[in-house]
Amino acid sequence: MVTAGALPPCAEERLEALKIDLPQPPSPLGAYVEAVQSGNLLFLSGILPVENRKPRYTGTIGRDLSPEEGREAARLACVNAISAAREHLGSLDRVTKVIRLGVSLVAVSDFTDHPKIADGASELLVDVFGEGRTSTRIVLGVATLPLGVPVELEVIFEVKDREAR
Amino acid sequence: MVTAGALPPCAEERLEALKIDLPQPPSPLGAYVEAVQSGNLLFLSGILPVENRKPRYTGTIGRDLSPEEGREAARLACVNAISAAREHLGSLDRVTKVIRLGVSLVAVSDFTDHPKIADGASELLVDVFGEGRTSTRIVLGVATLPLGVPVELEVIFEVKDREAR
Amino acid sequence: MVTAGALPPCAEERLEALKIDLPQPPSPLGAYVEAVQSGNLLFLSGILPVENRKPRYTGTIGRDLSPEEGREAARLACVNAISAAREHLGSLDRVTKVIRLGVSLVAVSDFTDHPKIADGASELLVDVFGEGRTSTRIVLGVATLPLGVPVELEVIFEVKDREAR
Repeated sequence: MVTAGALPPCAEERLEALKIDLPQPPSPLGAYVEAVQSGNLLFLSGILPVENRKPRYTGTIGRDLSPEEGREAARLACVNAISAAREHLGSLDRVTKVIRLGVSLVAVSDFTDHPKIADGASELLVDVFGEGRTSTRIVLGVATLPLGVPVELEVIFEVKDREAR
Repeated sequence: MVTAGALPPCAEERLEALKIDLPQPPSPLGAYVEAVQSGNLLFLSGILPVENRKPRYTGTIGRDLSPEEGREAARLACVNAISAAREHLGSLDRVTKVIRLGVSLVAVSDFTDHPKIADGASELLVDVFGEGRTSTRIVLGVATLPLGVPVELEVIFEVKDREAR
Repeated sequence: MVTAGALPPCAEERLEALKIDLPQPPSPLGAYVEAVQSGNLLFLSGILPVENRKPRYTGTIGRDLSPEEGREAARLACVNAISAAREHLGSLDRVTKVIRLGVSLVAVSDFTDHPKIADGASELLVDVFGEGRTSTRIVLGVATLPLGVPVELEVIFEVKDREAR
């Protein structure tokens, strides 16, 4: 996590300063779309830690994956979420706030360290969009996730200007 | 899934063309209501695959129920969601977009085929509201659901005109 | 649950009539904030049944905790949610509707009585905000929750007047 003060104010410039290359945006696994805008709210579909459309992490945190790997999975999913948002918006500078981050993770039954996993995504959002645009957060430990991945994200952004679709 | 081109543009006419008879809308199981509108957003409560207020499907997908039955459960819950929306709105033609579909399902621990189950609901939404109004989607495998059902849906619609309540 | 007719119309007066002392609002467990407002929507982060920042209830409903204790945990989390909302809004009288209550709970695998647990939160919302402002509700049985608590709430309010932040 880079200190906010060291970064430029705009999300697109911050992304460059952080040397983050956004991957291709994720594509739907069924009869839905990756992003829907309604007024100033942009809703994203559930975002997985995939690379080139294949799961980069699978299994259960605390058994198949270390907490650190869980964190990395959350960060990778968040990179994909940012890519999905830019695909819809044209520019991330249209994001005025991250409203809500939902983090669902699969962990062993005595796992209690959910916030550390979720911070893999939250800290990236802070780095890219800035402290003043930080989201609320809901973290749940679920039983299973699509494709066997350990983390799925849900993101709602507040955006400005016209609807791109 | 009927091809979109074969259907009329309005949701109410499409419903008729698809020969779908909407059942009685679901009723609350506790101290809440089935639908709340705020501005142009219509939020529905969690919708279960019930018929005549009783669970039509119960158990775990991959053990008590086949994936195909899971799909049918998702479709039935979606029919109930559409009925709840019409009850609130008066007419489904007031729906301008389906913003978000949440699908929570109970499956065996090695289940990874969540998108196929969820498509039971998504494909019905596309059939009734049209491709251009397709939702984002979040799919989670949870541990248990109310009444022991295998699928629960959450839906947010964008709607036009005055609030009905 | 006090009968609605016996209570004054405003949430702040109702809270007093119900003799509910709101605790300190919850504080974040990671890189996020407790409340974000966008237009007339106020989103809260996931709210846990904590007291003085420590979990008041931990474990699984139906094994470590009775259903009645699960209900109490849901009620305690809801008191914390109301405190978080007031912290952000200045006054609860700015709440025009409770739009959505999400209840995630950890219970034994054959548990089906989710609505009774969730009513611990819903009934408090009705008492404080009134029947006419009742929320939709989504209830899920999840596998694990942060800090090992049995219940987590998610709340979206509709509010009036200027954004406090």
